[in-house]
Amino acid sequence: MTAIVLLSGGQDSTTCLAIAKESHETIHCICFDYGQRHRIEIESSKRLADKAKATFQLIDVTFIKGLSNSAMIHKDMPIIDHKDELPSTFVPGRNALFLTVAAMVAHQKRSRVIYTGVCQTDYSGYPDCRDDFIQSQIATINLAMDTQIKIETPLMHLTKADTVRLMAKKGLIDWYKYSHTCYEGVQPACGKCPACKLRLKGFSEAGHVDPIKYQI
Amino acid sequence: MTAIVLLSGGQDSTTCLAIAKESHETIHCICFDYGQRHRIEIESSKRLADKAKATFQLIDVTFIKGLSNSAMIHKDMPIIDHKDELPSTFVPGRNALFLTVAAMVAHQKRSRVIYTGVCQTDYSGYPDCRDDFIQSQIATINLAMDTQIKIETPLMHLTKADTVRLMAKKGLIDWYKYSHTCYEGVQPACGKCPACKLRLKGFSEAGHVDPIKYQI
Repeated sequence: MTAIVLLSGGQDSTTCLAIAKESHETIHCICFDYGQRHRIEIESSKRLADKAKATFQLIDVTFIKGLSNSAMIHKDMPIIDHKDELPSTFVPGRNALFLTVAAMVAHQKRSRVIYTGVCQTDYSGYPDCRDDFIQSQIATINLAMDTQIKIETPLMHLTKADTVRLMAKKGLIDWYKYSHTCYEGVQPACGKCPACKLRLKGFSEAGHVDPIKYQI
Repeated sequence: MTAIVLLSGGQDSTTCLAIAKESHETIHCICFDYGQRHRIEIESSKRLADKAKATFQLIDVTFIKGLSNSAMIHKDMPIIDHKDELPSTFVPGRNALFLTVAAMVAHQKRSRVIYTGVCQTDYSGYPDCRDDFIQSQIATINLAMDTQIKIETPLMHLTKADTVRLMAKKGLIDWYKYSHTCYEGVQPACGKCPACKLRLKGFSEAGHVDPIKYQI
């Protein structure tokens, strides 16, 4: 049975792709163009799908640009992690939208499983990365379409260090070479934005070297 | 407070618009372009928003075309109401997608209420028109965005005849003149498709004359 993998091209979705590949013969990757400031991740996503011998589908949801004031979309906004409120990079409803569309793709392809790399351990600042949201989302989708689709979130309770160790154990650390994490959308990565910092911390804690290049 | 109204331009969403207008000073209507075969309803929607002195926003979700094999989108497919399975006009995931996007708009506009004309009485063939789906969808959205948005479904348990009577009581039957229902996307309406038949039955049972023209 085909598995659908939400492949943003980042570290977590790369790991998810590797996990899905272990138990599914065919993988269909979907990636969203939502006008993200780090559009370069779309190219990473394509390369990773190719590496995993998976099919790839880019879905244009750029209408989101008009519906969000997030720094993830608008380049003139600063990337800030607020202490008492949501990070400026939060795109309200993004994961709900992505998972709903993924379920539509799954329905069309008669797939019954969707993999997503959401993780509440490190990034609990995003409400749509939490397990209670995911459970509610899948119940909603199945009610909407009369289906029995599952959402697999193998990274939900792992730290970034855990995911690095997991890929190291599989001998697939080099897959990360093709991934893109930096919110600034630059290569070499800035090394300073919240996403870069989190990634670097994970590699450091796991005792592995990140195969991508950094400006720092 | 602004209310968001999902305004397809059909009979039910027209009725919802009238209901929302009674208790909200400002109304923001959203309408979706999803490549529907009855695209003419988009024009109806615009005219109705204008009549209600509401703002209007058309959202391009035409990417759905590639994700669905529904007769609602593909003109070469026949419109059939199957007895033991979903109607050929069902677009899997459509209402889940529309409500998710509506919630994103609500979040951006600091609105806390979305009106939708879904109705399980007459059209229980569509799983995403049922109340259990709506309840699940709103819980999902609020978990995703850390919000407390409500979805109002005033027509959920009404028959088409009930909605006609309701509008007659408000003295707004003439609003229906601007609405479009026919799946075939023609004006005068075909009068033969399942949507036309349901509409005509409702008017007939309520003892009112439908102000739109029919080919029959």
